[in-house]
Amino acid sequence: MLTISKRGQAMPPSPIRKLVPYAEAAKKKGTKVYHLNIGQPDIETPKAMLDAVRHADFKVLEYSHSAGNESYRRKLVEYYHKVGITVNHNQIIVTTGGSEAILFGFMACLDPGDEVIIPEPFYANYNGFAVSAGVIVKPITSHIDNGFALPPIEEFEKAITPKTKAIVVCNPNNPTGYLYSREEMEVLKQIIQKHNLFLFADEAYREFCYAGEHFSAMQLEGVDNHVVLMDTISKRYSACGARIGAFVTRNQELLDAAMKFAQARLSPPGFAQIAAEAAIDLPDNYFDATKAEYQKRRDVLVSRLNAMPGVFCPNPGGAFYAMAKLPIDDADRFCQWLLESFSYEGQTVMLAPATGFYGTPGLGKQEVRLAYVLNAEAINAAMDVLEKALEAYPGKLA
Amino acid sequence: MLTISKRGQAMPPSPIRKLVPYAEAAKKKGTKVYHLNIGQPDIETPKAMLDAVRHADFKVLEYSHSAGNESYRRKLVEYYHKVGITVNHNQIIVTTGGSEAILFGFMACLDPGDEVIIPEPFYANYNGFAVSAGVIVKPITSHIDNGFALPPIEEFEKAITPKTKAIVVCNPNNPTGYLYSREEMEVLKQIIQKHNLFLFADEAYREFCYAGEHFSAMQLEGVDNHVVLMDTISKRYSACGARIGAFVTRNQELLDAAMKFAQARLSPPGFAQIAAEAAIDLPDNYFDATKAEYQKRRDVLVSRLNAMPGVFCPNPGGAFYAMAKLPIDDADRFCQWLLESFSYEGQTVMLAPATGFYGTPGLGKQEVRLAYVLNAEAINAAMDVLEKALEAYPGKLA
Repeated sequence: MLTISKRGQAMPPSPIRKLVPYAEAAKKKGTKVYHLNIGQPDIETPKAMLDAVRHADFKVLEYSHSAGNESYRRKLVEYYHKVGITVNHNQIIVTTGGSEAILFGFMACLDPGDEVIIPEPFYANYNGFAVSAGVIVKPITSHIDNGFALPPIEEFEKAITPKTKAIVVCNPNNPTGYLYSREEMEVLKQIIQKHNLFLFADEAYREFCYAGEHFSAMQLEGVDNHVVLMDTISKRYSACGARIGAFVTRNQELLDAAMKFAQARLSPPGFAQIAAEAAIDLPDNYFDATKAEYQKRRDVLVSRLNAMPGVFCPNPGGAFYAMAKLPIDDADRFCQWLLESFSYEGQTVMLAPATGFYGTPGLGKQEVRLAYVLNAEAINAAMDVLEKALEAYPGKLA
Repeated sequence: MLTISKRGQAMPPSPIRKLVPYAEAAKKKGTKVYHLNIGQPDIETPKAMLDAVRHADFKVLEYSHSAGNESYRRKLVEYYHKVGITVNHNQIIVTTGGSEAILFGFMACLDPGDEVIIPEPFYANYNGFAVSAGVIVKPITSHIDNGFALPPIEEFEKAITPKTKAIVVCNPNNPTGYLYSREEMEVLKQIIQKHNLFLFADEAYREFCYAGEHFSAMQLEGVDNHVVLMDTISKRYSACGARIGAFVTRNQELLDAAMKFAQARLSPPGFAQIAAEAAIDLPDNYFDATKAEYQKRRDVLVSRLNAMPGVFCPNPGGAFYAMAKLPIDDADRFCQWLLESFSYEGQTVMLAPATGFYGTPGLGKQEVRLAYVLNAEAINAAMDVLEKALEAYPGKLA
């Protein structure tokens, strides 16, 4: 019989997108749906980026260098310098979104059957890239009670086996919003040095830190060969659809290997590289307004959530996500019920059940992720809906 | 010790791009290099495509649907209808270049250790996607003497094992330019039916057929579940840098699996989808001029090559590549020598050694691939250079 691969069967569907059909059905009924389920910001993409594409003067849309246009990589060096990361343009491979940077890292550093440790809850698509690369994800649990701080060193050491090749840290974190401190990053450094591991640093939300300065894994000293930065412009400039990211490391052997994967797929997207290059010349205060806007939204969201009976939401230090514990039997059921069976004044809210962000089955059943990608007014309206929903939900816990 | 993966080590470097440093050095010396080594056409990208991006009116560059914008997929249905392929928009996943369509096919249909049969010489990057997916490429040899026709059915049956899951056919072929006849496609159908295999059809050059009509694998009857079309706009509209392709199949189970890979990487590039959608509305005669231009170039190239002593170049029926057998000891050495040690009136030529297109070691040592992506005048000049080079080359065969 003609069958698809075991890998194709094992590939996880997106836990964020699986509720989409219910949302579509709700909209068809005329219900307004507040989308707090997905990290698609409503912030406008900077006009300078769009204009750069509009005014680009070329006749043939050619392949770029497989590592990305050199002019863009040289500008990226400037950007990284500003955020305290010293690299040169040959240490950067421009990728098709942060997604491809993660895939290149898994492919070039780990073999099928090798293990990667990731503090859970974690960005669900790491699972997909792990399945693609035949890599086993070993989650270690961070807890909502202490705001999802880095698990203690002993938890890492318990999880390390001879097959362990890497640790992934997403900082600030998606889905928890947790901002890792310099001290926590130094703990990770000790672990990767002692056990000879790669550290994959997903810093997609670097600019959005509210509880202190961002400390990049690339700023750790003495571990140049261990650290890979998996970066993206998607959230930074509200340009998710561009599909431009970067694979950055000072490990030459790894760069050479990653370049072979980059050559096989020829080049990253052309139009979007023009937009991304223009972004580097945005004024230095560009992020001030965006960050202030996200912080305002966070404050509204978190205070509204914590004011609801039985709800706990630790204050996220960065990114634009919050995890909340709700007094409910089952987050998947609740999120589906919100779309399928509930509305308040013709409105409902779409949330991401946290179960999809945990690697350990059974965890996150009372938790949801909320992306504060809507303005404060909409968030307030969505919280009104959620408050009423928690009162009405049949599976409410006492 | 911190080491990269075995997969990262096994990943093949691009055979087309490995001579680039020698070309750069030649240019630094002031030598003009005619690039016949890579399939980057000089044809202008249609202005309507670039204008569509220039005039696109949006504020936020959002993620698109993971399968690509529905509006674009609906337009693609029109395009496929025009070329005789009946599909609906849910049978199309827009990919990041044809590259990603190939990767999705390998990932979703084959498991590590499974085998795929590919007539050699073949597009070298299939090797890279095979290594990424842990898949073994089993080449069966097509021969320059009969213009690289499909090898006889017995050759396929000799290569088939219980691990064989798919056959790749690139039609018209890169690197040989061979255009498979309907009869040959029907032979492939018999094989995939008898042995229950997938047929991956790379039809990137569909519009460029000079020796007859194109017959698509999607037009084979009764094998809907077997056939996957791996498509791209790169060559069709001279838009290689856009990175827009398509994964097309009528096999629902396979579509569902491929969609999970598509969801993990979120969406295909946004700007480029706008350009690609505009391309569908180009006038029906758009390809006439491009095709006539390529045909003229082919005629110049092939006649010039066959006029050189000891050179044989079968007349390619499609695409914009020709393979030529040269009276030389070693194509890799010759191509490097052209860049490093030879010039004629301040000019030299860059070719792709055919060795990189064969899976069987040792084959293709007297062959080179020439991409006729320059205008006829430049091709004539490049042929003058090649003629002189063959006279001067120290490794010339009698």
